[in-house]
Amino acid sequence: MSLLVTGSIGIDTVRTPHGVSEDCLGGSAVYFSVSASFFAPVRFVGVVGSDCPFDLAEVFAGRDIDLAGLETREASKTFRWAGTYLETMDDRVTDSLELNVLAEHPPVVPKAYADSKFVFLANTAPKLQMELLDQVENPAFVAADTMNCWITDFLDGLKQLMERIHCLVINAEEAKLLAREFSLIKAAEKILAMGPPCVIVKKGESGALMCLDDGSMFVLPAYPTAVVRDPTGAGDSFAGGFMGYLAEAQKADFATLKTALAYGTVVASFTISDFSLNGLTAVTRAEIDERLETFRQLTSF
Amino acid sequence: MSLLVTGSIGIDTVRTPHGVSEDCLGGSAVYFSVSASFFAPVRFVGVVGSDCPFDLAEVFAGRDIDLAGLETREASKTFRWAGTYLETMDDRVTDSLELNVLAEHPPVVPKAYADSKFVFLANTAPKLQMELLDQVENPAFVAADTMNCWITDFLDGLKQLMERIHCLVINAEEAKLLAREFSLIKAAEKILAMGPPCVIVKKGESGALMCLDDGSMFVLPAYPTAVVRDPTGAGDSFAGGFMGYLAEAQKADFATLKTALAYGTVVASFTISDFSLNGLTAVTRAEIDERLETFRQLTSF
Repeated sequence: MSLLVTGSIGIDTVRTPHGVSEDCLGGSAVYFSVSASFFAPVRFVGVVGSDCPFDLAEVFAGRDIDLAGLETREASKTFRWAGTYLETMDDRVTDSLELNVLAEHPPVVPKAYADSKFVFLANTAPKLQMELLDQVENPAFVAADTMNCWITDFLDGLKQLMERIHCLVINAEEAKLLAREFSLIKAAEKILAMGPPCVIVKKGESGALMCLDDGSMFVLPAYPTAVVRDPTGAGDSFAGGFMGYLAEAQKADFATLKTALAYGTVVASFTISDFSLNGLTAVTRAEIDERLETFRQLTSF
Repeated sequence: MSLLVTGSIGIDTVRTPHGVSEDCLGGSAVYFSVSASFFAPVRFVGVVGSDCPFDLAEVFAGRDIDLAGLETREASKTFRWAGTYLETMDDRVTDSLELNVLAEHPPVVPKAYADSKFVFLANTAPKLQMELLDQVENPAFVAADTMNCWITDFLDGLKQLMERIHCLVINAEEAKLLAREFSLIKAAEKILAMGPPCVIVKKGESGALMCLDDGSMFVLPAYPTAVVRDPTGAGDSFAGGFMGYLAEAQKADFATLKTALAYGTVVASFTISDFSLNGLTAVTRAEIDERLETFRQLTSF
């Protein structure tokens, strides 16, 4: 079923103890789209400047990713991010950030995308997320990501957004910040009370927690990975695997949500195994399914 | 089957955001024994000073815990620990530590315990752990805990111990320290190469990881708990549930080890729900089994 994503396309420079990847392709919508495309056709909405060195049609070749929503804006510059991961790989510092085209008005959602049933609003200003969502007529399941700056500086907008979405996907630290609560379970409960019937808390190498407003709960560890070369894009790949599987299954009941969360975890484990999109593009759906079964074995007692 | 534990008995003062528990009963052998006693008879080896205000026979009343190995040493003082948990509950500071009787020679293992098949050596100097182990004739499964000070200052002794045990149970930070490795999976592999055919890495609120020398692996999240009142004793309760179940099952194959790890996780979740032993002593085996089933549901996809 139709899956729409709106998010960033970035030129990333990433330093990890395993090496440096300069001016490589990144961005939430890019990681999300490749991840989701293993499961369902993706409708892509994003914007780059005229300086963008990447041809997304070429990058996505062979994948069912519709680029009608990709805008190349003349006289604008593409979003850039540079970051360095610590030796322990459990934290990173941002070396530089140039919002560029992301600080301008958002791209338009093509009319042909208005009937999209599954929608993922990657992290950006809540006001923009709502503007984008306004252009979809009757979505069945909308998930959104957010981050600390919107929680601290645009909480009212974020709260309005939360009343219109079905699922908030959020990092553990941001969940605690949003709920003003140190306990993750209590934080999740408070976020559910803000509107979305489902909240997913991403805990990085500690896995993920999903809570529903009917009291259902689901927890998974991260997929155990010996070598993490570049964690960039893990969260968006997780969201891509999660939403991709829901769109493929064409439903979002609890059992489907649980399997989707496991798929998201597995897809993210491929992403972090190499720099940029390399870990993700090297894999097949059969390998994802195989790792899902391995993951099931690794966690069953 | 017979399960022997050697470890500390302590007088603890614990401060958490939920309150203060002054001069309460603690210690690794105490938490372990109560936890394991839900599954199998426990043989207790430990020592207190003549100042100990607790009657362990009374505390353990109704539980199958043999106190023939409890020594009360005249003219010695009982081990004391005081600690404060941070508001976030994910770290603690030690306010004071008095080793007292723990700095003296270890207690003797009663002759009647020499035929014990399952043995847990709680955290103490590796030399003492070996002295205690020497007094058991032909154990089937020996697990040991350790901590940073023995890794940094008594590594040779710890390495000798590791060649004689079947399982090392260790915190994530200590595993990284012991293996000189930031990746937990790689750290576990390096620890396996030091001798024990099984290593369990405790990750606190992030769950646990078990690796075997045949390449088998198992991962579990922590049991999701909304209210953590006092995390003291969580690790020893985990070990108690784990070893108790193995002793009950009378085997330690992979399937049994996996279920044992899940039981350890569940037992620890009761411990942290209240101060001192209160969370643990309030529970029944039926409630533990019920929570194990809930845990299975919470993690199955």
